[in-house]
Amino acid sequence: MSEFSLSTTRSEEMIDITGRVNGIVRQSKLKAGLCLVYTPHATAAVIVNENWDRNICEDILLSLSRMVPKHADYKHDKVDNNAAAHIKSAMLGPSETLTFKDGALVLGKWQAIMFCEFDGPRQERRIIVELVGK
Amino acid sequence: MSEFSLSTTRSEEMIDITGRVNGIVRQSKLKAGLCLVYTPHATAAVIVNENWDRNICEDILLSLSRMVPKHADYKHDKVDNNAAAHIKSAMLGPSETLTFKDGALVLGKWQAIMFCEFDGPRQERRIIVELVGK
Amino acid sequence: MSEFSLSTTRSEEMIDITGRVNGIVRQSKLKAGLCLVYTPHATAAVIVNENWDRNICEDILLSLSRMVPKHADYKHDKVDNNAAAHIKSAMLGPSETLTFKDGALVLGKWQAIMFCEFDGPRQERRIIVELVGK
Repeated sequence: MSEFSLSTTRSEEMIDITGRVNGIVRQSKLKAGLCLVYTPHATAAVIVNENWDRNICEDILLSLSRMVPKHADYKHDKVDNNAAAHIKSAMLGPSETLTFKDGALVLGKWQAIMFCEFDGPRQERRIIVELVGK
Repeated sequence: MSEFSLSTTRSEEMIDITGRVNGIVRQSKLKAGLCLVYTPHATAAVIVNENWDRNICEDILLSLSRMVPKHADYKHDKVDNNAAAHIKSAMLGPSETLTFKDGALVLGKWQAIMFCEFDGPRQERRIIVELVGK
Repeated sequence: MSEFSLSTTRSEEMIDITGRVNGIVRQSKLKAGLCLVYTPHATAAVIVNENWDRNICEDILLSLSRMVPKHADYKHDKVDNNAAAHIKSAMLGPSETLTFKDGALVLGKWQAIMFCEFDGPRQERRIIVELVGK
């Protein structure tokens, strides 16, 4: 199990973590297998999509905010005021599982691994990477 | 492969299965690896989110019902009248993959594994747990 | 790592790939473990749900199009005009992880593995299958 952390600077944002995950895969000396990218937070998520056009990240955040508007009579808002962030986190999920070959992640030309912040800014968000293979 | 089952008592609800999955991890004697938590049903799901404030589970179910209203001209409703449950199940997915270390799941402080019922009550809902590791 | 490809013929559609994935599991001679089904595209997805009543696939596509309407002021539409497809792909995710036993996928009676096209038709869409086990 490997782990790294990052800071977020906005209430919602996406941060490309492909390079850091690929570094862990390369250093492992494993040649092939499965790679779990997991964030241990209930108001964040990990997705795979395009980051070449950064607008896509903004479009995804916009679309999620339309589907899950903030403060729409959620009960948890009386406790911690961040219910919408929990709902988005549950929808997208805390992880993605990928495969790797010859020490590198197998990703499509337009795919990047993106950490999604839904309740920032936060000084420390953790990402755990677990590899299983040979 | 291990398996356990549970009953649901409402049309929609979330049930915390973290303890039962952790019991399987502990009994396996494996020290580290990947843990798949999978439900073999097309009107249920498995997610990871907060269960300390139970309101969050209700907020997630409420929000999903706003996004996927029941009986909104779905074709499958003429066959089995539970199309919205299938759509929610497809959105959240039948599984989560986690990692474990020293015989225990690696979860964030606010994370729990929740079984989601979208077409209950049901007498028997199954959860399959598969571990791969050392 | 195994791989196969398929063609899509409509702008949006779901294609059942359960049989092809099961063929790869069977040929691997592995008896038990994890099976990752991954599509390396940012405008497609892989889900598990019912395909016995084909209407469910249409209901899921309809419901997603209501949640993520096309051309709703997305920035990426000015670049490539397919932002809604990226958003749907991010929501459902590029993969599902399953388990297998005795050389066959463990699926519920009503579960099938469906490839989801959101930006078709496309001549070649790839599906990668990675098995880890014994």
